[in-house]
Amino acid sequence: MAAEIINPRSDADQSELIDPAFALHRGGKMEISATVPVRDRDDLSLAYTPGVAKVCTAIAEQPELVHDYTWKSQVVAVVTDGTAVLGLGDIGPEASLPVMEGKAILFKQFGGVDAVPIALDTTDTDEIVDTVVRLAPSFGGVNLEDISAPRCFEIERRLQERLDIPVFHDDQHGTAVVTLAALRNATVLTGRSLGELRAVISGAGAAGVAIAKILVEAGIGDVAVTDRRGVVHSGRTDLTDVKRELAGFTNKAGITGGLEDALSGADVFIGVSGGTVPEAAVATMAKGAYVFAMANPNPEIHPDVAHKYASVVATGRSDYPNQINNVLAFPGIFAGALQVRASRITEGMKIAAAEALAAVVHDELSADCVIPSPFDPRVAPAVTKAVAAAARAEGVARR
Amino acid sequence: MAAEIINPRSDADQSELIDPAFALHRGGKMEISATVPVRDRDDLSLAYTPGVAKVCTAIAEQPELVHDYTWKSQVVAVVTDGTAVLGLGDIGPEASLPVMEGKAILFKQFGGVDAVPIALDTTDTDEIVDTVVRLAPSFGGVNLEDISAPRCFEIERRLQERLDIPVFHDDQHGTAVVTLAALRNATVLTGRSLGELRAVISGAGAAGVAIAKILVEAGIGDVAVTDRRGVVHSGRTDLTDVKRELAGFTNKAGITGGLEDALSGADVFIGVSGGTVPEAAVATMAKGAYVFAMANPNPEIHPDVAHKYASVVATGRSDYPNQINNVLAFPGIFAGALQVRASRITEGMKIAAAEALAAVVHDELSADCVIPSPFDPRVAPAVTKAVAAAARAEGVARR
Repeated sequence: MAAEIINPRSDADQSELIDPAFALHRGGKMEISATVPVRDRDDLSLAYTPGVAKVCTAIAEQPELVHDYTWKSQVVAVVTDGTAVLGLGDIGPEASLPVMEGKAILFKQFGGVDAVPIALDTTDTDEIVDTVVRLAPSFGGVNLEDISAPRCFEIERRLQERLDIPVFHDDQHGTAVVTLAALRNATVLTGRSLGELRAVISGAGAAGVAIAKILVEAGIGDVAVTDRRGVVHSGRTDLTDVKRELAGFTNKAGITGGLEDALSGADVFIGVSGGTVPEAAVATMAKGAYVFAMANPNPEIHPDVAHKYASVVATGRSDYPNQINNVLAFPGIFAGALQVRASRITEGMKIAAAEALAAVVHDELSADCVIPSPFDPRVAPAVTKAVAAAARAEGVARR
Repeated sequence: MAAEIINPRSDADQSELIDPAFALHRGGKMEISATVPVRDRDDLSLAYTPGVAKVCTAIAEQPELVHDYTWKSQVVAVVTDGTAVLGLGDIGPEASLPVMEGKAILFKQFGGVDAVPIALDTTDTDEIVDTVVRLAPSFGGVNLEDISAPRCFEIERRLQERLDIPVFHDDQHGTAVVTLAALRNATVLTGRSLGELRAVISGAGAAGVAIAKILVEAGIGDVAVTDRRGVVHSGRTDLTDVKRELAGFTNKAGITGGLEDALSGADVFIGVSGGTVPEAAVATMAKGAYVFAMANPNPEIHPDVAHKYASVVATGRSDYPNQINNVLAFPGIFAGALQVRASRITEGMKIAAAEALAAVVHDELSADCVIPSPFDPRVAPAVTKAVAAAARAEGVARR
């Protein structure tokens, strides 16, 4: 990716000529505005003192009114520590801000959800957890973003234990929801069921772990996950706690060895790792396999190669069909959760999101359309509605 | 103030009929919006991946570019712990949110500055400092709000020591700046100078301490501050650290006793405490005194009483002339500081703000106009310009 990057050096105007991304980003990508008038003394006396005092007192006496009379229930904190930003890695909090702003405007554009970028000047798990807990009164939800594994797992778990608002690590669950939706539609298209499939996930980071979990939850036949050292299995002595847990509920087939060993005869390849899978290995997959090669900008298996062997091909790129893009999930998931003031986002809510997302294109299903376009206007309303209903069904809704 | 408050009870709609403040506050008072288009794939590929990666990488290599290519330099965190909200006291973070949202929309309306309410779920000084330090990468400045004394002094000082962005406790300095501006104009109007005045400040909390400091800095003849136990002087054994410091640079006259002792012969009364000053005490002030009775909603000295003895009368109320309102200061102060990327807001910048604010009405000066209206459109540009210039002159500007 380095070759793509043009440094602005000290001359910002020069780089803006070179690359339109710099011109677009000048001054940032978002702003705040008032939704009530502040034109004159009367306006001010309602929106600020003395009128605001009545609202404050009412909330002090009946805390749940904060959801009615402030923006809390429509605003999400997009929290990062800048350690796993896009494919760029640990670039620090300031340098991550353009991504967080991008995320924030996607929240608004696609889900109608307000979102505030919060890039933290710490990478310590305890400090991140404590900091976000202290911020939480101002927000209706927390979207964790681009925090490196394995800290991201513990941070999410501990935050959700301590907070009564949804905490959602999008790199995990957004990706998992969209992947499951595409996989569901691939099975519908090809007349198969999840239960008969054996999947291989290349990558045991945030996305890989979450995809494995949601696939098992949704009833996949079997799934093996590989990291740089090969298939994750309980015989390995080099596993982190998270990978040890993963070994416990994946790889029923007991595969050992490398990615290529796992791929032989597999029905599904899911790439969330980068790297390249040799064509010879792809050729060993089961007939009619699905290949979801999601690394950006270079898919683990090029779509042209994948199409030689697979019945359904998806990538993370916008210039090929079937783009697995988180923006299909997170805006609607948070919009639905906030709408019913859910205290958390359960596995059931995630699966409901995936099903609703898949259903959007049921009538137009084809090998080039197992997942809607990010700009399909039906997506966010469908996901929102399904997630809100699932929250009620699961007993985590508060209205 | 309690009598004014109408509880919404459990029936929010009912209370909205009773008081328009509730209807106005439904859903909050602010929203976020994108300032760049996100309509199609091309937009997304510039504002989000892959285009955003170039901007992130540029900032990682040249950290100061974060000011050019994100909203950092135009967004302020409005941070509170909910312990000293309006006259309501310690009502907690959630109940303080309507005030913080109000502040945020005033920042935008009057200064063009984006502001995010951050109400913290802690009142511990160390925790507040650590939390705000960790948030700081996302913000161009920190406006501390409604944090009770004496913690507010230490929190501001420690934050400014650790951060290279402005930290400004508005309850202190906003009030101090506007008070100084009004006082300057009162002296111009009556042909006097600050150096010949002896002032009495009723209230040794956040506002009282900051007003005392700025008046001394600006060259007041003498100033005594009173708290509930009387005049702050170095002979007292019950003083906090902050009041001990105050005793060191105020009250050159060596006054002891109560507020009434201090008022006798005084040229200026500044009330930031609540409570009521007996008319008999007002009558003992020097001829042509100035009375700034700023408690809300009930001034320490009613304007009708004050006018019997004083040449200039100001209050905190919008329904009397000469309203000492912080909104005259904080939007322009932050706008000016952010414009030049100041690392802090110095005493010189505050005094420059006060002078610019005072100068706005120099041509129309009268006893009923020593300070502009909050809606005077000349105010924020004048304060912004003066503060930016002062920041450059004081060597804290970074561009």
